[in-house]
Amino acid sequence: MALKLGGDRFCVRYHIRGSAAIALAKAKDICLEDTVELPDDLVPDGPIRDSILGRVEDFHSLNKNLHEALISFAVETAGSDLTQFLNVGFGNISIKPGLKLRRFELPDSFLRRFHGPRFGCAGWRNRTGVFHRPLLCTAIKPMGFTAKQCAALAREFALGGIDLIKDDHGLADHPFCRFRDRVRRCAHAVREVNATHGAKAIYIPHISGRETDALERAHFAKEAGAGGLLIAPGLTGYETMRRIADADDIALPIMCHPSFQGSYVVSPSSGVAHGALFGQLARLAGADSTIFPNYGGRFSFTRAQCADIAEAASCEMGRLKPIFPTPGGGMSLERIGDMSRLYGKDAIYLIGAGVYRYKPDIRAGCRRFLEIVEEKAKTGKL
Amino acid sequence: MALKLGGDRFCVRYHIRGSAAIALAKAKDICLEDTVELPDDLVPDGPIRDSILGRVEDFHSLNKNLHEALISFAVETAGSDLTQFLNVGFGNISIKPGLKLRRFELPDSFLRRFHGPRFGCAGWRNRTGVFHRPLLCTAIKPMGFTAKQCAALAREFALGGIDLIKDDHGLADHPFCRFRDRVRRCAHAVREVNATHGAKAIYIPHISGRETDALERAHFAKEAGAGGLLIAPGLTGYETMRRIADADDIALPIMCHPSFQGSYVVSPSSGVAHGALFGQLARLAGADSTIFPNYGGRFSFTRAQCADIAEAASCEMGRLKPIFPTPGGGMSLERIGDMSRLYGKDAIYLIGAGVYRYKPDIRAGCRRFLEIVEEKAKTGKL
Repeated sequence: MALKLGGDRFCVRYHIRGSAAIALAKAKDICLEDTVELPDDLVPDGPIRDSILGRVEDFHSLNKNLHEALISFAVETAGSDLTQFLNVGFGNISIKPGLKLRRFELPDSFLRRFHGPRFGCAGWRNRTGVFHRPLLCTAIKPMGFTAKQCAALAREFALGGIDLIKDDHGLADHPFCRFRDRVRRCAHAVREVNATHGAKAIYIPHISGRETDALERAHFAKEAGAGGLLIAPGLTGYETMRRIADADDIALPIMCHPSFQGSYVVSPSSGVAHGALFGQLARLAGADSTIFPNYGGRFSFTRAQCADIAEAASCEMGRLKPIFPTPGGGMSLERIGDMSRLYGKDAIYLIGAGVYRYKPDIRAGCRRFLEIVEEKAKTGKL
Repeated sequence: MALKLGGDRFCVRYHIRGSAAIALAKAKDICLEDTVELPDDLVPDGPIRDSILGRVEDFHSLNKNLHEALISFAVETAGSDLTQFLNVGFGNISIKPGLKLRRFELPDSFLRRFHGPRFGCAGWRNRTGVFHRPLLCTAIKPMGFTAKQCAALAREFALGGIDLIKDDHGLADHPFCRFRDRVRRCAHAVREVNATHGAKAIYIPHISGRETDALERAHFAKEAGAGGLLIAPGLTGYETMRRIADADDIALPIMCHPSFQGSYVVSPSSGVAHGALFGQLARLAGADSTIFPNYGGRFSFTRAQCADIAEAASCEMGRLKPIFPTPGGGMSLERIGDMSRLYGKDAIYLIGAGVYRYKPDIRAGCRRFLEIVEEKAKTGKL
């Protein structure tokens, strides 16, 4: 039976270092490496060479030493899960330095394979009832707290007016703080504040683990009254996050955490661009919000890299919903002005240490966080 | 209830760039970032500061701009799966440039949580009956071949004397080459050659996918007569590989593939060291062989980086078995001498394009591969 393909192709944009000649050779190498994995002279002529092989659709220079190549692949090469999609788009190629995956350009026919974010920005807004400003998020920490201490903190956050109260991503199923005990107590604490104060705060436990554990934790969290889920796909694999996002009997908004994924973005010349990784891939895998370290905090992302993530969180991707960029990482209340200039109101502002600084009156820290943001909203600065 | 920890700690060795003062500050930052995720002045005194926080056990300079820090973490922080272990050892820290995870140093009490490789080097040797030389491996490709074409190739490889016949990692469950059809046909082809020629070749299909698919594929492959499994943990997550390795009703040796993991190693100053990633982590997750691009091929690993992987594939890790380094990636038959000098006989030599060069008589390419290696073994050059 002869190989027959439908003709639909998806595209990946790469930035390639080197002279134009070297970069073009590298672009042609991408076409081979992540499909047939054979030297060009050994590729069979006919449909394999014509269709399976990647194809350089565009190549141009950005400067003497940096070039952009748009490469297309037959949609059939990518199977139907993110595993094989990444295998084609950035599999072996990830091992070659001087190549950066800049952007995915995916046709509707391909995007139809993915449900993407179930809730997106609108879902978060509907669930919290907050429409006029960014949502406020903080994290339950430190690791080492008992479940009871975590719940006491969750209560303070809710009383302080925080919308989204998430586990720190370091909280797992620890002997000193069991997942189920923590989730039960924290969900209860937040629910109680909501009931007595007419609030709509959402508790978001961290559920990363092996797939079966993560699924079980997601179900338990839902039962216990959690309103969202935090997952780090760098730890679990993208398909685990997607499976949880797609599960109709879970149906909770998902926050995506970048743990263990820094190596994809720390090199300026290799890896995956910030927007492609934390924006586009997170959406393909069903995240409704994407956490990343804001510029000017204790990490080293630049303003432009953060803007790239924010842009990719809502760029056109067929019917895939836009999601909230969720900058955090050593943010202080003093930085809210800066954050609002870059992200505006359609974002989740994540401030941890900045509210802990008000210890022992952490509730006051949360209130201050809310006041500052409300003030900005009122004065049209968002 | 007060926090009580057993006192056991595991260690991670990091290489850190910068002046000694900056590097020491970064080491202390690692202690905070991947545990409590709070600035030092906000860490509660008592057991959290004393035990949960990472601890700099050793710090010394390698040169003016490069320093080594050994940091210990309470074993309890890492939970019981690789997800949380990586979250602590290289979670948020992965996002900070100028830090390289150099080596894991894990006490027996921690290693007892992991079964590690079920077969290891000895298992591969027992299954192939090859004890005096490295095992020979080649890959079924290119993507685009039908299942029938794949099986015809597998047959040629087996007739040519190849020990381990693996799918190329680009072969998935494609509309033009269904996983089940391919595996059934390839396993049958290899079994038939084994039966008629008294050979013991092993067919190793690629099973990466979402966890449920990977598990299902593993079971199907076992039923169909496959003798091993190829998995890319960068695509599936480490726990998926571990789950398959640990499944008593699968019990097939596993080859680990580096697809999508290059970004961890391409930067000389950031990420994870080659040996820690492709050696130690692969073993923790149950791999019996670890594939990586050999130096001098079409990738850019150095000889020292490859030696690091080979060393880590058999370094002391409690009761975790040593596994076979499996260098490949654009290797030619002419390079076997080089390979043998670095890896000796306790390795799997993976040559793909080098045998395809003999097309249309690929069987002759395999025979030549075997001859060269046997010759080296006979003349004591292994």
